[in-house]
Amino acid sequence: MSTVNKIKVGILGASGYTGADLVRLAASHPYMDIRVLTANSHAGKPYGQVYPHLASMQLPDLITIEEANWSELDVIFCGLPHGTTQKIVASLPEHVKVIDLSADFRLRDTATYHEWYGHEHFAPQLQENAVYGLSEHYREDIKKANLVACPGCYPTAALMMLIPLLKAELLDKNSLIIDAKSGLTGAGRGLKQNTLFAEAGEGFSVYGVAGHRHAPEIEQELSAAQGDDVMVSFTPHLIPMNRGEFVSTYANLAPGASINDVREVLSQTYKDEPFVHLLAAGAPIGTQFVRGSNQCLLSVHEDRVPGRVLLFSTLDNLVKGSSGQAIQNMNIMFGFEETLGLMQQPMFP
Amino acid sequence: MSTVNKIKVGILGASGYTGADLVRLAASHPYMDIRVLTANSHAGKPYGQVYPHLASMQLPDLITIEEANWSELDVIFCGLPHGTTQKIVASLPEHVKVIDLSADFRLRDTATYHEWYGHEHFAPQLQENAVYGLSEHYREDIKKANLVACPGCYPTAALMMLIPLLKAELLDKNSLIIDAKSGLTGAGRGLKQNTLFAEAGEGFSVYGVAGHRHAPEIEQELSAAQGDDVMVSFTPHLIPMNRGEFVSTYANLAPGASINDVREVLSQTYKDEPFVHLLAAGAPIGTQFVRGSNQCLLSVHEDRVPGRVLLFSTLDNLVKGSSGQAIQNMNIMFGFEETLGLMQQPMFP
Amino acid sequence: MSTVNKIKVGILGASGYTGADLVRLAASHPYMDIRVLTANSHAGKPYGQVYPHLASMQLPDLITIEEANWSELDVIFCGLPHGTTQKIVASLPEHVKVIDLSADFRLRDTATYHEWYGHEHFAPQLQENAVYGLSEHYREDIKKANLVACPGCYPTAALMMLIPLLKAELLDKNSLIIDAKSGLTGAGRGLKQNTLFAEAGEGFSVYGVAGHRHAPEIEQELSAAQGDDVMVSFTPHLIPMNRGEFVSTYANLAPGASINDVREVLSQTYKDEPFVHLLAAGAPIGTQFVRGSNQCLLSVHEDRVPGRVLLFSTLDNLVKGSSGQAIQNMNIMFGFEETLGLMQQPMFP
Amino acid sequence: MSTVNKIKVGILGASGYTGADLVRLAASHPYMDIRVLTANSHAGKPYGQVYPHLASMQLPDLITIEEANWSELDVIFCGLPHGTTQKIVASLPEHVKVIDLSADFRLRDTATYHEWYGHEHFAPQLQENAVYGLSEHYREDIKKANLVACPGCYPTAALMMLIPLLKAELLDKNSLIIDAKSGLTGAGRGLKQNTLFAEAGEGFSVYGVAGHRHAPEIEQELSAAQGDDVMVSFTPHLIPMNRGEFVSTYANLAPGASINDVREVLSQTYKDEPFVHLLAAGAPIGTQFVRGSNQCLLSVHEDRVPGRVLLFSTLDNLVKGSSGQAIQNMNIMFGFEETLGLMQQPMFP
Repeated sequence: MSTVNKIKVGILGASGYTGADLVRLAASHPYMDIRVLTANSHAGKPYGQVYPHLASMQLPDLITIEEANWSELDVIFCGLPHGTTQKIVASLPEHVKVIDLSADFRLRDTATYHEWYGHEHFAPQLQENAVYGLSEHYREDIKKANLVACPGCYPTAALMMLIPLLKAELLDKNSLIIDAKSGLTGAGRGLKQNTLFAEAGEGFSVYGVAGHRHAPEIEQELSAAQGDDVMVSFTPHLIPMNRGEFVSTYANLAPGASINDVREVLSQTYKDEPFVHLLAAGAPIGTQFVRGSNQCLLSVHEDRVPGRVLLFSTLDNLVKGSSGQAIQNMNIMFGFEETLGLMQQPMFP
Repeated sequence: MSTVNKIKVGILGASGYTGADLVRLAASHPYMDIRVLTANSHAGKPYGQVYPHLASMQLPDLITIEEANWSELDVIFCGLPHGTTQKIVASLPEHVKVIDLSADFRLRDTATYHEWYGHEHFAPQLQENAVYGLSEHYREDIKKANLVACPGCYPTAALMMLIPLLKAELLDKNSLIIDAKSGLTGAGRGLKQNTLFAEAGEGFSVYGVAGHRHAPEIEQELSAAQGDDVMVSFTPHLIPMNRGEFVSTYANLAPGASINDVREVLSQTYKDEPFVHLLAAGAPIGTQFVRGSNQCLLSVHEDRVPGRVLLFSTLDNLVKGSSGQAIQNMNIMFGFEETLGLMQQPMFP
Repeated sequence: MSTVNKIKVGILGASGYTGADLVRLAASHPYMDIRVLTANSHAGKPYGQVYPHLASMQLPDLITIEEANWSELDVIFCGLPHGTTQKIVASLPEHVKVIDLSADFRLRDTATYHEWYGHEHFAPQLQENAVYGLSEHYREDIKKANLVACPGCYPTAALMMLIPLLKAELLDKNSLIIDAKSGLTGAGRGLKQNTLFAEAGEGFSVYGVAGHRHAPEIEQELSAAQGDDVMVSFTPHLIPMNRGEFVSTYANLAPGASINDVREVLSQTYKDEPFVHLLAAGAPIGTQFVRGSNQCLLSVHEDRVPGRVLLFSTLDNLVKGSSGQAIQNMNIMFGFEETLGLMQQPMFP
Repeated sequence: MSTVNKIKVGILGASGYTGADLVRLAASHPYMDIRVLTANSHAGKPYGQVYPHLASMQLPDLITIEEANWSELDVIFCGLPHGTTQKIVASLPEHVKVIDLSADFRLRDTATYHEWYGHEHFAPQLQENAVYGLSEHYREDIKKANLVACPGCYPTAALMMLIPLLKAELLDKNSLIIDAKSGLTGAGRGLKQNTLFAEAGEGFSVYGVAGHRHAPEIEQELSAAQGDDVMVSFTPHLIPMNRGEFVSTYANLAPGASINDVREVLSQTYKDEPFVHLLAAGAPIGTQFVRGSNQCLLSVHEDRVPGRVLLFSTLDNLVKGSSGQAIQNMNIMFGFEETLGLMQQPMFP
């Protein structure tokens, strides 16, 4: 494919942070041509008015979803409120591939979707063909997919660590405790009192206790990996910073398993992956080392408590946890080199 | 005791953050008269040169420990590097009460001290009389003590939650997982690359994995509470903010125990305590709600995973986690009202 | 006055940050008895639901302004949207003293008020008796006042530096350039996109360029000090932190004046003031050294450019810049010791 | 030039933040091949040990300067302590181009260098051929240069605004007041107490009052632009954030000049520049809109004070203020497209 054959891209719900990061990353991608940007509440505005940091880019003005001309597009990224994408996708021309960043198509069981999102799934027939877009683990399915449901940010960090370990039956599936922490961008651009600077700054708090919607998604994938029902403790916290997510997972080893097995399985799984890195023992792990990049870092340790392991994963919630992984999936779907547009190094400090 | 009978106070190692917060809090205490401030590397300087925010207070200049006149003091607070206080205390006049903020006298088993701190305990005979200064749980012993070892910041937060629950045998003692997070002041004022603003800002990282020195202290107290050996997973993380500590503890309920039992035991334990508050279900919990105060907040929840509970505690590491609790202990030792000088409300935002 | 004779206090608009800081400070004041807390949008709620950090205090529930029983109050603090206090004050019983934290009564010229606030002054007859509450400079008037208009946060920091210097005719009145910076609490608790953590964090920006409402207030007081019309450049910026305000003022010396004159005048003006401190040359000045306290720090320097001086002032915008100064004024109005409830030392770090 | 003809790059003093950002940006540059990385105190270490965020890049290990093989290099970037580069450059093979990020060759007058840096200039003969690397203003000289002295971060922000205006004689040259603010990365990676997170966090302070070394550099360039001696007030402040610099300049218009002239001159000067953007009136300006990018934003306003203008400029101190501009200069020197490797969009939030 030559540079003249760029793919035509639409971004729906482009006024959210994931939309902005899609645009930012697309600027470094040789084959993405952004043709449509929608944001119903900002329709008619130049994108640079909504996101001043991107004002010097040549971009189409924001329009409503109704105004979009689907036929000219090859792919759309959707960053819409839950339920919305389910309705829109059904009406699209068949040739348009969809990469959804919302939760609309992540849960294969539509009853589970209903339970956690409070309304019937509006497109159960499409759900059947949706592929869960955890790139490193569903690559072959993504290649053939027309509808990819990108994982949530927390699930991406947690699953990258746990799927290989459960597949290898190295952990006691009933012992999984996931203590997750995220920067404020994870809460979105909507106006909420607790995400004001003066409320969240110089503070660390827990939220969504025993009820965060990323739990069923994690459990779905871990159950598939284990070949058995898996239930996890999942508890998210809010860090006073913009970007980054850190997941600390505590688990008991399965009988006979060792920390070396853990390390070996992860090492084998990701040895050729450009974006997922198992750190050497002793190497520091923190969100600051992935900021702005599509990388996911993993670090594993034996606990002082015999038979228990400490598993840490970190990523930038807006990149590998959202927009970056979405573009990675696009690269896979369109047969591009998987790293295109995504090799920006982390920005530290 | 009238206001003319203030007690004469010395602060050893006054150039650290705990020293500064002792001075700050002492300014609001009606009976504390600071007579001695030591900091060997800053001896000769006015305190306001080392801590400009306290420059308008009337305070003695910093001196070396050697220059201190112990005989004029009633009590000393020690915030010295580990090992140092063990040596100093032995040489003090008997009438001087000692409130130690270091780890020197926290571990009753001197062999455990040796193992974790890398040197022989220098004052094992004093250790026998040292009282662990978790105010709410050792109040009667503290009243009679001449040497109080104030708990570490993490242990204070963790134990305030767990001691009552283990005493009541409500938790599976083998299931305790403590995921702890602290602001940067916990790392002290020493110059370290990873505590520079540019390194720690906009970042969240784990440290001291499976080897933090607060683990044996927590285990000592939990074992005493349980009446049996208790070992815990304890993993500290660094939050990009100054003050505050948040501890998330995960545990399985003991057979027959319920979340209501948990709530009831904590409620009973702390119902008359001025500084420890069990929050109502649904009330938000975060470090920003205790900043600068001597309060410790507790919040308990049932997990989605049956039989598991989610236990959150938070405090200001420099106050209830250090200097505030030290003054609380002083109040107890000298027969003052326990809340004297400590009723400053949290500063939010 | 004995402790049984506390004064009965109402706080109107108690759901804003200045309201919360009034409550926080009042908790340390021996003679303040909070009887009324209003917040129309939160009426009926316990105060601890709106401000969890104060949940352990014994406070009346929030009510609407209409529900307040004025006759039982001795003083009310008003933190209401502009225009509102003008209407309320007129209807109060005469014995109730009013300390207003809004801009409603700051501008003596009601035409200037109209010009900057976009509506007619609703109580011009009250304006005549209002006293501008810059405590150190209007102390004698405040003593006799029934209505005190507390200065804005920026004006407090700027005027504390400039009033004495203009009175002494040390500066070229046409050369004043005020570059001001504030933390996010200055923007209030209202929901605005640009005060979200993710928007303001890791960012520094200018706002209110050539149009901030604190300009006429500064000019009014400087003109009075100079005895001639004074106009200033005033430019506020937003710092990614919660509390604190830093004002850098640039000025040319008047013919014959020297930096020593500047230092001498400030030194004389504030030598007995408990809250305003002229720093020695070389002492660091920053917002972190006043955080949470009622202090205002001043620092003056000669520039490399001949005849120019660099004047820095800093304070906590919620304390000396708002609630603290309001309580200081209350102390003056009621004949209390001026420092009562306000000697909390700055919290650093 | 084809991709096989990459230029061979050395980075001296690669352990500083500017070094790390050079490496980060080089990763996106098609023609840069990093062959040498020096850091005397870290020699022998993999670069990823010093900067974990870059651990997944293929890079040479750190060596000492003595170990470097200059003959294999086409260009070196120097980020060394002042005085050091002056000594090293003299010993390099002639074919090696030098792009210096320190202050060693910025001041054309070696006596001024001596005065501000406290030692004789060690290479006055080289100074004569050094070109000041403010890319947009010295492009033609840079093309032919073998030694480019990249401007300091503050000067870049200040000069981008002021050079065109002084050249056009639009401002009163005696009225320039520059109030500058920078994030903590500007202070470097060295261990200093005041750059610890706990000291700088939640604080804003002034430093280098009337003595910052960027002043003579700014004055040199403004004097050249004006064709007459220019002296400025230059006052830097520290913002509690990592990256970003904001410069507020206050000036009086020259007789007959207007804000429209100011706008017009800047607009003309930068209309074809890819990295410098004059914002429309009303567009927000803040460091968060340039973070991580090579952009410099300018915004101009008329003040309320007649005849005075308010001039704001912002950039990322590590990119356009340092490493990015250095690479831009390299592109110019080697005849590459000037934007190569530098079109990464700002990262917001």
